[in-house]
Amino acid sequence: MPSLRVALVQLNPTVGDLTGNGRQVVEGILRAKAWRADVVVFPEMVITGYPPEDLLLKPTFVDDNLRAVRRLCPVTKGCAALVGFVDRDRAGRLFNAAALLADGRHVASYHKRCLPNYGVFDERRYFTPGTTPLLVHLNGARLGVSICEDLWESWPAQEIRRAGASLIVNLSASPYHAGKSRERQRLFAQRARANRVSVAYCNLVGGQDELVFDGGSLVLNAGGRLLAHASQFHEDLLVVDLELPTGPSRAVPRSSAVVVTGHVRPPPALPPTSSAWLEPLAEVYDALVLGTGDYVRKNGFETVALGLSGGIDSSLTATIAVDALGKDHVVGVMMPSRFSSPQTQDDAKQLGRALGIHVEEISIEPCFHAYLQTLSALFGTRAVDVTEQNLQARIRGNLLMALSNKFGWLVLTTGNKSEMATGYSTLYGDMAGGFAVIKDVPKTLVYQLARFRNEGASQPPIPESVFERAPTAELAPNQTDQDTLPPYDVLDHILKAYVEEDRGIQEIIRRNGLPAETVGQVVRMVDRSEYKRRQGPPGIKITPKAFGKDRRMPITNRYQES
Amino acid sequence: MPSLRVALVQLNPTVGDLTGNGRQVVEGILRAKAWRADVVVFPEMVITGYPPEDLLLKPTFVDDNLRAVRRLCPVTKGCAALVGFVDRDRAGRLFNAAALLADGRHVASYHKRCLPNYGVFDERRYFTPGTTPLLVHLNGARLGVSICEDLWESWPAQEIRRAGASLIVNLSASPYHAGKSRERQRLFAQRARANRVSVAYCNLVGGQDELVFDGGSLVLNAGGRLLAHASQFHEDLLVVDLELPTGPSRAVPRSSAVVVTGHVRPPPALPPTSSAWLEPLAEVYDALVLGTGDYVRKNGFETVALGLSGGIDSSLTATIAVDALGKDHVVGVMMPSRFSSPQTQDDAKQLGRALGIHVEEISIEPCFHAYLQTLSALFGTRAVDVTEQNLQARIRGNLLMALSNKFGWLVLTTGNKSEMATGYSTLYGDMAGGFAVIKDVPKTLVYQLARFRNEGASQPPIPESVFERAPTAELAPNQTDQDTLPPYDVLDHILKAYVEEDRGIQEIIRRNGLPAETVGQVVRMVDRSEYKRRQGPPGIKITPKAFGKDRRMPITNRYQES
Repeated sequence: MPSLRVALVQLNPTVGDLTGNGRQVVEGILRAKAWRADVVVFPEMVITGYPPEDLLLKPTFVDDNLRAVRRLCPVTKGCAALVGFVDRDRAGRLFNAAALLADGRHVASYHKRCLPNYGVFDERRYFTPGTTPLLVHLNGARLGVSICEDLWESWPAQEIRRAGASLIVNLSASPYHAGKSRERQRLFAQRARANRVSVAYCNLVGGQDELVFDGGSLVLNAGGRLLAHASQFHEDLLVVDLELPTGPSRAVPRSSAVVVTGHVRPPPALPPTSSAWLEPLAEVYDALVLGTGDYVRKNGFETVALGLSGGIDSSLTATIAVDALGKDHVVGVMMPSRFSSPQTQDDAKQLGRALGIHVEEISIEPCFHAYLQTLSALFGTRAVDVTEQNLQARIRGNLLMALSNKFGWLVLTTGNKSEMATGYSTLYGDMAGGFAVIKDVPKTLVYQLARFRNEGASQPPIPESVFERAPTAELAPNQTDQDTLPPYDVLDHILKAYVEEDRGIQEIIRRNGLPAETVGQVVRMVDRSEYKRRQGPPGIKITPKAFGKDRRMPITNRYQES
Repeated sequence: MPSLRVALVQLNPTVGDLTGNGRQVVEGILRAKAWRADVVVFPEMVITGYPPEDLLLKPTFVDDNLRAVRRLCPVTKGCAALVGFVDRDRAGRLFNAAALLADGRHVASYHKRCLPNYGVFDERRYFTPGTTPLLVHLNGARLGVSICEDLWESWPAQEIRRAGASLIVNLSASPYHAGKSRERQRLFAQRARANRVSVAYCNLVGGQDELVFDGGSLVLNAGGRLLAHASQFHEDLLVVDLELPTGPSRAVPRSSAVVVTGHVRPPPALPPTSSAWLEPLAEVYDALVLGTGDYVRKNGFETVALGLSGGIDSSLTATIAVDALGKDHVVGVMMPSRFSSPQTQDDAKQLGRALGIHVEEISIEPCFHAYLQTLSALFGTRAVDVTEQNLQARIRGNLLMALSNKFGWLVLTTGNKSEMATGYSTLYGDMAGGFAVIKDVPKTLVYQLARFRNEGASQPPIPESVFERAPTAELAPNQTDQDTLPPYDVLDHILKAYVEEDRGIQEIIRRNGLPAETVGQVVRMVDRSEYKRRQGPPGIKITPKAFGKDRRMPITNRYQES
């Protein structure tokens, strides 16, 4: 039975950084060679980063990516590598592809067969599906190559198994949502068992705008048992020895079957690496940390600023920022008004001290006064309403942006998914900033994550009173969120059903035993605030359906369920 | 030779308004029946509006759309109608479909074969392509049914012609860009001539978020000659009598061939309607008027407010708003600062008077002063820079939003495409508002449109000095746009090549004979301001590639052409 040493190089490339990404691939190959790996596998489109979106429509971008692949060849002397890139045929059609580089040459390319075009994916916008499987003969073993979605569908695995593969290698760029690692393991184990093949899955890691790729590359044997997995949310190298049956090679695919002679020495004994998957809250928290850190770093910033209100949202956002960037790169800004209570201000200060971050305090009263004076003639005797609340939030937004402009800091916003969904936020106010860390985190999960973070610390950074106090925007006297919104546990139930699961109003009422009026009110709020969400900053997707390119709703929309 | 009377009902539905759209279709059928039409044709997806985007993922939405189609049947007694809707099969798959309703029954459905998934289109996200042509036998004539993209590809017309069609009917929702009407006529004439078939093309009209559908429905004879077209940018009913050859019916398509007995009386003589296509500038101007009016009305607003600076952008935006909504529904707001010149202020006032709109004047100085005081301790001795410019723009944004909140006005922004492209604008400042009327209009075209509007008026509303003055943001002493940007004619050339045509830097330098430094600078500005554009309001697409869902670039993007 041939023994194969497979190295999975779980990298964090940057979209568009063809040179830097190529350099990372070279280093990965060298490290894998040092381990005497027979084959080294990289993530999907590791050369370009994923997703490059409409960069793919620029011919120079595709040219430069092809050049980057050619530059990798020399380093593959004495080994085989599978590297994700963008291929182009003579007719100019593009393919999401894997290059088989071996012994210094680009031996073959595999073109992804199944192109996802749902959720956050737009692959049919760019790519033509491949038509041919790729079977690689390597030191007596037979590997079938697949890319991401090819393994989520069932037929490509069956096809390559019929062609004789005893190992399916998958290059992937699979975006995170809560529980995704376990979901993948379950599905791939099913594929392994159903086809009696081993599976070696190499996923991307890192943040790219709204997406986080969580890594968690893994190897399963033909019985579906997990042999090893790479770390989640960090770069990693996973090296595994597999005993692969040869068996008869039936129905070898046409022109695409390729033989590679692996010029490698017999592998030394090597124990497979392993560790448990992260617990659910740790997983989400780490996704937020990685997504924030990568957005800041990859966009050339070092330091972030955020408003500290003494509430749970800004407290959690601050701890995530500190865990992502270090306390010296986070600035908290307190911006009290006439409606701010001493308690919230104390809590904000206490949080800042506990995290060891620099905290500035700027009163918004003089600016607020100036606006009210300026507008008084126009407003006349009209009643105070949401206008005056929004003004306060917008002054805070302006002050943060002024600090951003003057000092080069990126502003983090602190709104959660429950607020984004209902429009319980001020456009150009608390929504002003470069990155919305927790925009896909429902309020009830915000509390759980904050609790989780506190429990993991010897000195819990978030004051207990932040958990106990009724949530308030402090924009009007004695205001609480529940003046306007249903209780958050009810609200989050409705939002999950309506936003993430696309359920109808009647169905939500029926399934959850909720008052029709409450459900109707929430649905209206969601529908009417699409225009706000469209102008909000990007933030990290952690649920199966986030706002953003995951959920593409028209602003102009008169639909009402009949 | 059978004579057929075809009625094309060019409607302006609203996305999601299933009841209202259904009512419009009923009225259209009744009007066509009054004209004794044999067949009445509606635009693509007229029942749902186009594009409904992710509303399609809600099963209740599809249910309600199917119900709306069923409600149409009774009114089709004595005629045949082709109505665009969303079909669903038993497996739950969705189809972009045309319902053939005849004599009170839903006789057959045609499923669109070619699903566009480029540019602004995401049809593969929702729909499964149809597999079967639909030939309709009607009073001795044979009609082939097609939907939008089916006629842009060449094979569906060939296929239905082989099946015996002598007339191809096309239901369409084709978004406008400059020159699109002529482009369609050219292409469809080619299809008509190549297949020796007549073509009856019914397009949608109206604005939907960033898209404008321009109407211009048309009928061509089998020689490709234009018999008549409907108006552009307005609802219309086009009734045309066609003499159609019978010829042998070869290769009638399988199960999908359908015979309809048209219970109609012999048609009275009717002259085909006709008029010239709009001139290029009139066409763009009307697109902006329709897109603005529909966005405002369909989102439930009556009145808009916009900042009047005395510059060309806000002047043009104001005339468009007045032409879209009427002078009583437009409020101009002058917000001078220490850097505003008496000339620009006079021009703004003069424009307001000429348009007959209400103009408010609000000084931003007290607020500006309050911000500078508030930030002085933090800023210390740091030099004045773009921070102070942005503050002024943001105060203006806040004041307009406060008026919006207090009075229920929608704020229009006034930035043009050259500014949006280069990021020469202030996020949350001049970019704050609900709708960006001219965001896809390059600065050079802004001048042409303003000139066009002035020339069409007995009293030109835009003062001559607005055309003559060097463009300036008036945010710093003696500032002009050209301190920061290349001359606008050069800039717009580069932007067209880079943004709309996806050309590489070297190619732009070579083709246009431009300095490498200038091209490189512009490309960098475009790439670096993606984050701003992402948070800007929607606005009307008038070029082949607009910012928005037409051009999906990553924010995190390190690509530099090598």
